[in-house]
Amino acid sequence: MTSFRLDQTTVHQPLLQEAQRMQRPENHLRRLIETPDRLKRYSIEGCGMLLDYSRQRLDDAARRLLFTLEDALRLRQRFGAMCAGEKINVTENRAVLHTAARAFGDDPIRVDGRDVMPEIRRVRDQMKQFSEQVRSGAITGSTGKPFRHVVVIGIGGSYLGTEFVSTALAALSDRRLTLHYLANVDIHNFGAVAAAIDPETTLWVVISKSYTTAETSANTHQAEQFMRDKGLDPARHTVTVTSKGSPGDDPARPVLQTFHMFDFIGGRYSVTSAVGGVPLSLLLGYDRFEAFLLGAAEMDRHALEAPVAKNLPLIAALISIWNTSLLGYGQQAIIPYASPLAKLAPHVQQLNMESNGKAADIQGDSLEPPAGVVIFGEPGTNAQHSFFQLAHQGHPFPIEFIGVRTPQYTQYTARSKGVTNHQELWANLVAQANALAAGRPSEDRTRHFEGNRPSSTLVLEDLQPINVGRLLSFYEARTVYEGFIWGINSFDQFGVELGKVLADDLRMRIARRNSEPDYDFGDMDDIGRGYLRLLFGESFRGRVLSVKF
Amino acid sequence: MTSFRLDQTTVHQPLLQEAQRMQRPENHLRRLIETPDRLKRYSIEGCGMLLDYSRQRLDDAARRLLFTLEDALRLRQRFGAMCAGEKINVTENRAVLHTAARAFGDDPIRVDGRDVMPEIRRVRDQMKQFSEQVRSGAITGSTGKPFRHVVVIGIGGSYLGTEFVSTALAALSDRRLTLHYLANVDIHNFGAVAAAIDPETTLWVVISKSYTTAETSANTHQAEQFMRDKGLDPARHTVTVTSKGSPGDDPARPVLQTFHMFDFIGGRYSVTSAVGGVPLSLLLGYDRFEAFLLGAAEMDRHALEAPVAKNLPLIAALISIWNTSLLGYGQQAIIPYASPLAKLAPHVQQLNMESNGKAADIQGDSLEPPAGVVIFGEPGTNAQHSFFQLAHQGHPFPIEFIGVRTPQYTQYTARSKGVTNHQELWANLVAQANALAAGRPSEDRTRHFEGNRPSSTLVLEDLQPINVGRLLSFYEARTVYEGFIWGINSFDQFGVELGKVLADDLRMRIARRNSEPDYDFGDMDDIGRGYLRLLFGESFRGRVLSVKF
Repeated sequence: MTSFRLDQTTVHQPLLQEAQRMQRPENHLRRLIETPDRLKRYSIEGCGMLLDYSRQRLDDAARRLLFTLEDALRLRQRFGAMCAGEKINVTENRAVLHTAARAFGDDPIRVDGRDVMPEIRRVRDQMKQFSEQVRSGAITGSTGKPFRHVVVIGIGGSYLGTEFVSTALAALSDRRLTLHYLANVDIHNFGAVAAAIDPETTLWVVISKSYTTAETSANTHQAEQFMRDKGLDPARHTVTVTSKGSPGDDPARPVLQTFHMFDFIGGRYSVTSAVGGVPLSLLLGYDRFEAFLLGAAEMDRHALEAPVAKNLPLIAALISIWNTSLLGYGQQAIIPYASPLAKLAPHVQQLNMESNGKAADIQGDSLEPPAGVVIFGEPGTNAQHSFFQLAHQGHPFPIEFIGVRTPQYTQYTARSKGVTNHQELWANLVAQANALAAGRPSEDRTRHFEGNRPSSTLVLEDLQPINVGRLLSFYEARTVYEGFIWGINSFDQFGVELGKVLADDLRMRIARRNSEPDYDFGDMDDIGRGYLRLLFGESFRGRVLSVKF
Repeated sequence: MTSFRLDQTTVHQPLLQEAQRMQRPENHLRRLIETPDRLKRYSIEGCGMLLDYSRQRLDDAARRLLFTLEDALRLRQRFGAMCAGEKINVTENRAVLHTAARAFGDDPIRVDGRDVMPEIRRVRDQMKQFSEQVRSGAITGSTGKPFRHVVVIGIGGSYLGTEFVSTALAALSDRRLTLHYLANVDIHNFGAVAAAIDPETTLWVVISKSYTTAETSANTHQAEQFMRDKGLDPARHTVTVTSKGSPGDDPARPVLQTFHMFDFIGGRYSVTSAVGGVPLSLLLGYDRFEAFLLGAAEMDRHALEAPVAKNLPLIAALISIWNTSLLGYGQQAIIPYASPLAKLAPHVQQLNMESNGKAADIQGDSLEPPAGVVIFGEPGTNAQHSFFQLAHQGHPFPIEFIGVRTPQYTQYTARSKGVTNHQELWANLVAQANALAAGRPSEDRTRHFEGNRPSSTLVLEDLQPINVGRLLSFYEARTVYEGFIWGINSFDQFGVELGKVLADDLRMRIARRNSEPDYDFGDMDDIGRGYLRLLFGESFRGRVLSVKF
């Protein structure tokens, strides 16, 4: 039988031994980074990006062994199967074709024998036309005024990726439209958005594959009532992005336009579909969105075709597994030295933790310990002044630094201590990775730096759409490759189901209480009842509280 | 000798045994939460807040033992010494008096025999007057227009706490002024702020205790050049918050006003000083800032006076230590079911990880393993649609949920499935904690929920300033108590020094290259040189790149 998960390959035990060997003092990172040509030998370039992993806890022997996983687990072959439309999401019997969303050229991509590219091209054309018409003022709201605000109603995969990209590319917006996000069902989210927009010039983009997501439904109802209260026709202020035939694609409930999404593109992988495409085309113009797609497509090809030693996302995935499952680190930080990438970590948190936080393998057998790792991060240098104390002297965790070689905003040229702001930023990026790796021993334990803290650095040339597209696809491919190595299905998310089932039950009890003031929530667990009573004004100890809502 | 750190107390071994005992199947959380009166017996109320720890992996025996740490480590006595001005920051020979920043009443608080309260009151009065004069238009910019934008230039402790509070209370702003943050030295941060403001109506608040922070200096220089380019007089558009006698408090460099900060209040504990006070008073009006201070002061008293079994931050600290050092969890998540608390986790990341990410105890001896824990978080329900897959089925980590009983924005009343948005939010909060604790076993491993994932829930009545003040102080006191238990100094941050030293060196090399184009960075490590060459347009492999900056 061919292996499909790391811990069943013949290379697993030898890898664990290599990881043990790296714990020896002579393999401290301080020593490794001093080996000849370390930087050249542990960095690769491709797709206009550079991946430096010279400060990972790897030497030639460990790396050689790690790279054999490509063959042992047929990693690129499985990636190819994904791109070709094979139904690798086995639990849901679905193809996984986010790569098709940015495929150009004439090659068909078939699912169940049917080429999916024509419908993808159709949606792209629709986005191009619609965004141009809105941006030019040809399509207006119900009072005839051009749109100035776009509110994206969507949560999780219908929100985080688009937020990452719109933040990364904000400087390129001509500011014709302002983008707002309404994700959380918390009424504070709605209230803050309502206070920031002008209803007459606001377009609401409702994004939900099933169109039954509880949060998105609640916010859509709220928005519709808000529009009606302002004398506006919701049908002329709303577009939907949803599956064909969903309640959001119902001629009985007319909207300006409906853009289709497809069951072969999962939420957290959907930024390059209409989920990201509608808001990003409106904000930036369709051409910039397409440049972003081209970057993602280029990285897809690289991820599929580059041999392991030259393959950026594949090496990043192998390092992630090395750190997590072999060296035993429980977290990873993503620290972009670029403010516009502030929303990258929240996006990758979803992308990676929802994809790979799994306790069953692709055949349904247990994984012990479970796959996945906690990912968090904030931009540098901010993070240095926040949690880097712990990174340097507390529990170590691997870091993925990101540098951008050429900044925007070159008109601001003031220098401080002889350097530009960008040069100061760069100096800090380089200094942190070095300090973490090398450390600096001291007799004074409060000033002792143990070092041996691993990091990689990814360098982008600039923050043009093509590079943001490459970066998005890099993290998608890294995540997919990690899932292949762990042998899991990175495309389902059954772990979120139980919470939904329990929330459904609680919602029904609350709804009943809304109409029956004497209803005490029926038969249920004590703690849950305590919280429902608290919501309706009675403390855990039976005291009556004033009810203000 | 009295013990001052957990692992040197006589109770440490018994606690480890209790933690072992909790691993047994009969102590699964599913069982614990079904014990009689679990909610009442494992929740406390105080300071208008409720802390429910019924879903922590504790039973009566374990809790009893954990509570003995209060006596064994004299925790409240040490907290009292802190509040009384004792120099518990021993490495820097400083008092730790953030509690004095919100002390009202007439009692003196002495450091080296000198009462610090008069100067604290003076700064408060100054903030009150200044904020009223700016808000009323009595103080204007250099062209006579009233201020409409405030840009806070500051990083780390001069930024994150204020950002948390201003986000939490944003709904209370009368929108006379818009607040912007310029923290990162990244020129993208400056560029984005510059594009969002109107220079003539912008007040810059420069916050730095030493006034030598590299990022803040660079951004201040950038801002001053920007103002001069617009024909404005920086002196009439700038206030400083800094130590007496720092370069930011120099009559030779006039500004509108200077507000003093004191060496007995550390950056990450400084939100209730002028660091938070100046921007928050400008945004919200001084009275709301004072209400926030009163809430913080109330929680300070509670933290000091309430016996352990009734003490919210002390119990939260004990639970944090229980989970981290005894049960062995490597992360904690903070998940507020309230969008306005979106910036709480980044604030607590700094507060807690910078305070307690330490490898030396208060006497300078090694701590192995190091103290501290990784903290991360996003608001719920957003987090459910992001990384909760991993929380439910991947590596478990403890969670601190936060609920708000009464929302703002009660004017939006649309219901979905019979409930308001706030009720939907509440149902999810309750459902998640239950699902994580109880789980739901299944033969199908992809749908198996192991449960036994601990959480606490903190409930606030609403998001008025008093409650946000209580919440701020709760996390400060929790952090301080954790540090006392680990036996570390939570008030220094030598772990950030090495990175600064290395960055200083790199900056000097870059500055020299700026003036000497042939300079190849002198004697330095290969990797560092590779990055400096890259910045100036040469790839790691010697190829010349186009230089665009």
